[in-house]
Amino acid sequence: MYRVDLNCDLGESFGAYTIGMDERVLPFITSANVACGFHASDPSVMEKTVRMAKEKKIGVGAHPGFPDLLGFGRRNMNVSPDEARAYIIYQIGALQAFCKEQGVHLQHVKPHGALYNMAARDAALAEAVCAGVKAVDPELILLGLSGSQMLLAAESMGLRCAREVFADRAYEEDGSLVSRTKEGAMITDEELAVKRVLRMIVEGKVESVTGKDIPIQADSICVHGDGEKALAFVEKIRGALTQAEVEIVPLCRL
Amino acid sequence: MYRVDLNCDLGESFGAYTIGMDERVLPFITSANVACGFHASDPSVMEKTVRMAKEKKIGVGAHPGFPDLLGFGRRNMNVSPDEARAYIIYQIGALQAFCKEQGVHLQHVKPHGALYNMAARDAALAEAVCAGVKAVDPELILLGLSGSQMLLAAESMGLRCAREVFADRAYEEDGSLVSRTKEGAMITDEELAVKRVLRMIVEGKVESVTGKDIPIQADSICVHGDGEKALAFVEKIRGALTQAEVEIVPLCRL
Amino acid sequence: MYRVDLNCDLGESFGAYTIGMDERVLPFITSANVACGFHASDPSVMEKTVRMAKEKKIGVGAHPGFPDLLGFGRRNMNVSPDEARAYIIYQIGALQAFCKEQGVHLQHVKPHGALYNMAARDAALAEAVCAGVKAVDPELILLGLSGSQMLLAAESMGLRCAREVFADRAYEEDGSLVSRTKEGAMITDEELAVKRVLRMIVEGKVESVTGKDIPIQADSICVHGDGEKALAFVEKIRGALTQAEVEIVPLCRL
Amino acid sequence: MYRVDLNCDLGESFGAYTIGMDERVLPFITSANVACGFHASDPSVMEKTVRMAKEKKIGVGAHPGFPDLLGFGRRNMNVSPDEARAYIIYQIGALQAFCKEQGVHLQHVKPHGALYNMAARDAALAEAVCAGVKAVDPELILLGLSGSQMLLAAESMGLRCAREVFADRAYEEDGSLVSRTKEGAMITDEELAVKRVLRMIVEGKVESVTGKDIPIQADSICVHGDGEKALAFVEKIRGALTQAEVEIVPLCRL
Repeated sequence: MYRVDLNCDLGESFGAYTIGMDERVLPFITSANVACGFHASDPSVMEKTVRMAKEKKIGVGAHPGFPDLLGFGRRNMNVSPDEARAYIIYQIGALQAFCKEQGVHLQHVKPHGALYNMAARDAALAEAVCAGVKAVDPELILLGLSGSQMLLAAESMGLRCAREVFADRAYEEDGSLVSRTKEGAMITDEELAVKRVLRMIVEGKVESVTGKDIPIQADSICVHGDGEKALAFVEKIRGALTQAEVEIVPLCRL
Repeated sequence: MYRVDLNCDLGESFGAYTIGMDERVLPFITSANVACGFHASDPSVMEKTVRMAKEKKIGVGAHPGFPDLLGFGRRNMNVSPDEARAYIIYQIGALQAFCKEQGVHLQHVKPHGALYNMAARDAALAEAVCAGVKAVDPELILLGLSGSQMLLAAESMGLRCAREVFADRAYEEDGSLVSRTKEGAMITDEELAVKRVLRMIVEGKVESVTGKDIPIQADSICVHGDGEKALAFVEKIRGALTQAEVEIVPLCRL
Repeated sequence: MYRVDLNCDLGESFGAYTIGMDERVLPFITSANVACGFHASDPSVMEKTVRMAKEKKIGVGAHPGFPDLLGFGRRNMNVSPDEARAYIIYQIGALQAFCKEQGVHLQHVKPHGALYNMAARDAALAEAVCAGVKAVDPELILLGLSGSQMLLAAESMGLRCAREVFADRAYEEDGSLVSRTKEGAMITDEELAVKRVLRMIVEGKVESVTGKDIPIQADSICVHGDGEKALAFVEKIRGALTQAEVEIVPLCRL
Repeated sequence: MYRVDLNCDLGESFGAYTIGMDERVLPFITSANVACGFHASDPSVMEKTVRMAKEKKIGVGAHPGFPDLLGFGRRNMNVSPDEARAYIIYQIGALQAFCKEQGVHLQHVKPHGALYNMAARDAALAEAVCAGVKAVDPELILLGLSGSQMLLAAESMGLRCAREVFADRAYEEDGSLVSRTKEGAMITDEELAVKRVLRMIVEGKVESVTGKDIPIQADSICVHGDGEKALAFVEKIRGALTQAEVEIVPLCRL
């Protein structure tokens, strides 16, 4: 029987500012990537988010990002590998403290935004990220882009890792995501998106943007909770997975 | 035989900015209060500071402060107890992650600046601080002003705690520090400062600003490493303690 | 004929975070208090907000606050008068640059949140705020709580000023606002709120929380655009003012 | 007679953190680039720096940078041209307000660090920077790397501009600076550095890293005040210029 995790970025609110529909998406997912105060979130939001995830028995992960609240961590920043490692350690530790407070086990780490994308391509940055994860807790699962440098680095260091796929993104022939600036980068047809995800799980294949089938491993599907449309899609994909008898489980049970 | 700890605030540099002579004061102290990125410090500085403290076998403590880098955490901020608890948890966790990386045990927590002073007087804030410490690790030692609300709160919660005294500050009759805005707040005569500290340790007494002897408990003496004069005083007080056969040990060995 | 200004805090979004329904409230107000990047807002938001206010011919004001994005400038901070003056100058200048870009004249300055409330009571802080305003442009109008220290300071310095009243807040006998922590602080009956405002404008009186009539001067009414209910109330108060033949004009035309 | 400006980055301290020997370098320079609170500085530091520059009759310039205090604005950040323009406008305005307070005319704008370097090569970013400068005050002088995209953009927009050269840096054949990561990037021989600068001013030429003479225009020389060695070099270069009868004047008098 096939198994997959549904992960979603949560806890991105900050002070008086609210982003996302965390409470509404929680019932549909199995793993939560909780922002750690650099690109989003604050200590009160982190505490509340870990508490909510615990109540719903969702796997809790750290979602560290660049120190760029103004840019929501989405802008490339030329940080050194040493800086990146220290940022990762700091943010995981901060979240882990709330996990201890709530008696929750920290399950995984998924870098955010520009850090995720840069570390997917840059081996030195990927190693720095993985070294940071391992330094805090070698049992943590690294969640990264399927086929990326980040997963290669994790494997070579002996870190547990999980391969993330995107339902709404097109893939290049080499397994990387088609840049959002290119045409055809987004899969807007929801039926097609669901079919593609099912095929990734069951067949281990996806049709690249060039039309060629490429191999892909799907341990976890990235979903969003930042709007009614996103929520509806999460429900839809969940329904399709269930119907296809794919078991939906947190990363730690894969 | 008498025992006392010498604690010093360390790791207060930030990015391109350097504060303090950390490497030079380290050989003279037994416990380091490491800033955690809110009022001072950054992930790279924290990593380096924990590494240096480990090499010198100094007890490592978290030094959480208000989220006010511009004011160096020295300005009173009207944060709620819930916010304070979350800030404490976040900062301890962040430092603890670097301790894990270096294989060091986190020894204590000493709130910084305005947070320290406000929690010394405000019972609700003191409870919030202690609740935050306990939530992360109930074995942590809370280092607070001798006779303060913070120590009362720690004791009532069953937290281990250590009583801090100041060599260079005058005391009110109730054991609180004379406000820096009042005349006579600072003990500028170094010989006198050393004598006062020795008497606190050996007799458990200090002469208050009014001339009346008051009881005081001294587990740890706060020293500074932010200038040549401060460094010379640390050496002097260390010499006087040794000569008086007071053993100088980290908080965890008191 | 009576005249009054309707002012509203705008431009409080930050990066990926949105607060307020700026576009929807703009048609109903005559003066906009634009956040300046300390407690809220960012350069891109400020630019956009000034542009929108210009299109609607709304008076543009600076809304400087404490450097506390996490607390949205609502937490008291113990800044010195010198710091406060410098913070005010910095923030006014930043907004003024966007006014220059758009060819708009900066009309007024209204301190935000905790800074507004602290400067209403604290003469030294009030003087610092007014000194900052005057230093940048002595023609700026200071918008402050009717009867407050801030207005006294402005008058004694020869600054133009405008007196702000609140439709939804109860007043103490001395003209200060009843603290939100006290019962009866908020006027929740909208009809009553509208009647009270009209009486302030026409009779120069309001019934204090103790039941005694007190004198009050109303140059500008504070309204909100942060929700459907708030928007509906702005429309209602605007309608009532128009019906009572009170002219609604920007501060600079009072 | 030849004329040149000596410019130096000043006002980079922040809160409790001090960087640079501003008071000591001021007597030797003619233009000050004052940090504006994004990569360094704070409102109190800016106020003090403008006051000191005024006393010494030094030309005051804005030194806007990326919003990256942690990285001191030295890390490339992938900001959009629209963001860059808004950041420039905000920072110039903030500094200009302190100039108004002190009755000083803002003379120029020199982007800082990574923003300076990125805009030297990237035409779209260069245009955004220049558009921001022009939007606030079309009389401002843009100070940029001699031969860079930034100066091309300024010229095409009709902005006044001044060409900056570096005494301690090697040049590529195309007039760009040799990257600090390459060998030979720094001119460490002070005598040679002085000779090179004099030749740039008098002959309009410099020997590139490949040994070939290239044309270069020198309106302003960048000097540093962040250490005893830097200060000594400023004095030395000033002496050499005076001896060669090169007049040292602020940018506005070139």
